[in-house]
Amino acid sequence: MTIDPARSGTVVALSGGVGGTKLALGLSRVLPPGLLTIVANTGDDFEHLGFFISPDLDTLTYALAGVDNLQTGWGRRDETWSFMTALGEIGGETWFKLGDRDLAMHVERTRRLKSGEPLSAITADIARRLGIEVTLLPMTDNPVRTKVATPDGVLDFQDYFVRRQSIPVVTGFAFDGAAAAVPVPGFLAALKNPQLRAVVICPSNPFISIDPILAVPGVRAALAAVDVPVVAVSPIIAGRAVKGPTAKMMRELGLAVSAPAVAEYYRDIITGFMVHEEDADATAAFCVPVQATNILMRSLEDRERLARAVLEFADCLTVKPRRINVGGSVQ
Amino acid sequence: MTIDPARSGTVVALSGGVGGTKLALGLSRVLPPGLLTIVANTGDDFEHLGFFISPDLDTLTYALAGVDNLQTGWGRRDETWSFMTALGEIGGETWFKLGDRDLAMHVERTRRLKSGEPLSAITADIARRLGIEVTLLPMTDNPVRTKVATPDGVLDFQDYFVRRQSIPVVTGFAFDGAAAAVPVPGFLAALKNPQLRAVVICPSNPFISIDPILAVPGVRAALAAVDVPVVAVSPIIAGRAVKGPTAKMMRELGLAVSAPAVAEYYRDIITGFMVHEEDADATAAFCVPVQATNILMRSLEDRERLARAVLEFADCLTVKPRRINVGGSVQ
Repeated sequence: MTIDPARSGTVVALSGGVGGTKLALGLSRVLPPGLLTIVANTGDDFEHLGFFISPDLDTLTYALAGVDNLQTGWGRRDETWSFMTALGEIGGETWFKLGDRDLAMHVERTRRLKSGEPLSAITADIARRLGIEVTLLPMTDNPVRTKVATPDGVLDFQDYFVRRQSIPVVTGFAFDGAAAAVPVPGFLAALKNPQLRAVVICPSNPFISIDPILAVPGVRAALAAVDVPVVAVSPIIAGRAVKGPTAKMMRELGLAVSAPAVAEYYRDIITGFMVHEEDADATAAFCVPVQATNILMRSLEDRERLARAVLEFADCLTVKPRRINVGGSVQ
Repeated sequence: MTIDPARSGTVVALSGGVGGTKLALGLSRVLPPGLLTIVANTGDDFEHLGFFISPDLDTLTYALAGVDNLQTGWGRRDETWSFMTALGEIGGETWFKLGDRDLAMHVERTRRLKSGEPLSAITADIARRLGIEVTLLPMTDNPVRTKVATPDGVLDFQDYFVRRQSIPVVTGFAFDGAAAAVPVPGFLAALKNPQLRAVVICPSNPFISIDPILAVPGVRAALAAVDVPVVAVSPIIAGRAVKGPTAKMMRELGLAVSAPAVAEYYRDIITGFMVHEEDADATAAFCVPVQATNILMRSLEDRERLARAVLEFADCLTVKPRRINVGGSVQ
């Protein structure tokens, strides 16, 4: 089979924070400018110290602008922490770490939101000012707030994730506001673009990064209607999460902690699944076509390599019988 | 005449920002803990980037806590500017300089104000956390906003002072909200304290630092009713302002730019006036008793020395015939 890695066509990537951002950045570097739309989860968004904070949008923005903190994966490069230190001295809340440079984003975005601008417009303007050439969208301009159900009650996401360090047992999730949310216009338009080449679900946490995006009315239907491959990359490698509480959540939700279980979880929406080499011998267990490669992204080269591999895999899936070519000829 | 510089009794100081803070700090260092109440002008307060900023309270707080910037006279020591740099990168307003450490004050105070706490309670709590032992009060918990009348129209104070660098010609001032403001309870109580020893008007700008305090209903009457000396220190030395637009404003308002003109401006409320040595030979021109000394405060020692001199001068004035002793014996 011949594959053209430089094939044109647009790509839509769904992403959460740190893990997803790695692949999103890789895609942004291997695709020509203007062909990539990245849709960010905003279920993690919250208000803190009077600021509207959108962690996944921020992580994506900083990475795409090349000002991200390579050590932490979140926050800004060359960050200083004077604000946080001084805040502690006068009795302020310091459990959510806000760097001095990072704070500029929260202050300016909060100011603009309060003046009535939608989140998507602010995100686009700031991305442009930071030299980002891909289209970065929040999934919706409406407030959606992920809630984590635990035996001790329902917790706000950041309370669970940051303050309680994901320690409470998880029994389920809710996405407050999702039912009344509207996808940002560019999101559905990107999925309906006749030039669409593939949809990529980045290796983010399925429950708290991707599910909130899918919970916005119209998104699942739009994904079901695309006639190009929808490829997810596994956030689980050899039974362990690369980062974060994904494995712990799967276990607590009664799921197998495995790449096939993630594919099964996504089975309604994906047409292909990428796993790590270590999971290659389990391919028989998958519900969809699978490709195994090194999906661990440590370096910038890793991100680009995986992005190319995902696109090649998607292009490969495009020729499957049930697919209709963009050009219109039925297989 | 014998003077006891360690005489007990409480002192109330009225202060604006940088200039007044120098003497307020000096007073805090020469008076025993618990005897000094400093009342800050809040007419300079404004909202910016979503923060409630109280420049004079901040300057006083930082100086009294020993974390002030000795080079600028405002803002914090060991300050970093990452926030401001990053804000500029994403198109935010950068004309009002907010350091990273300083920002903690604005964020925390804004949060607490929005939760319903009065400014005076927040100020007291933060002062306590920073180890400040004197009583620091905003003049009122109500919003008062200084407006600057110019031939081009009425300007918000910070717009005039910071953004336009005090360049527009001044034709007058208004203190929006002052008529409906109430002095914080501790302010009038401090003026009525039977142990009151003196009231000190720090060498601040009379028009934009002291007048807003005097414009709060009840303050002038309370000052008129005190039976102890009210001593002002001249912000003008040899026809020039030590700092800021005081001289320019006096000129534009048609006043002589001189220490006697300041004393004349305060004549309704002061019983003594301290001037610089250079103005000593003009003492005949003053409307009230005058003492000349070196009132230029460069070092910490200068601040303490002037504070002692002001108290000694006040104690001297206490024995004037029209005064009634705290003990009750009429002179």
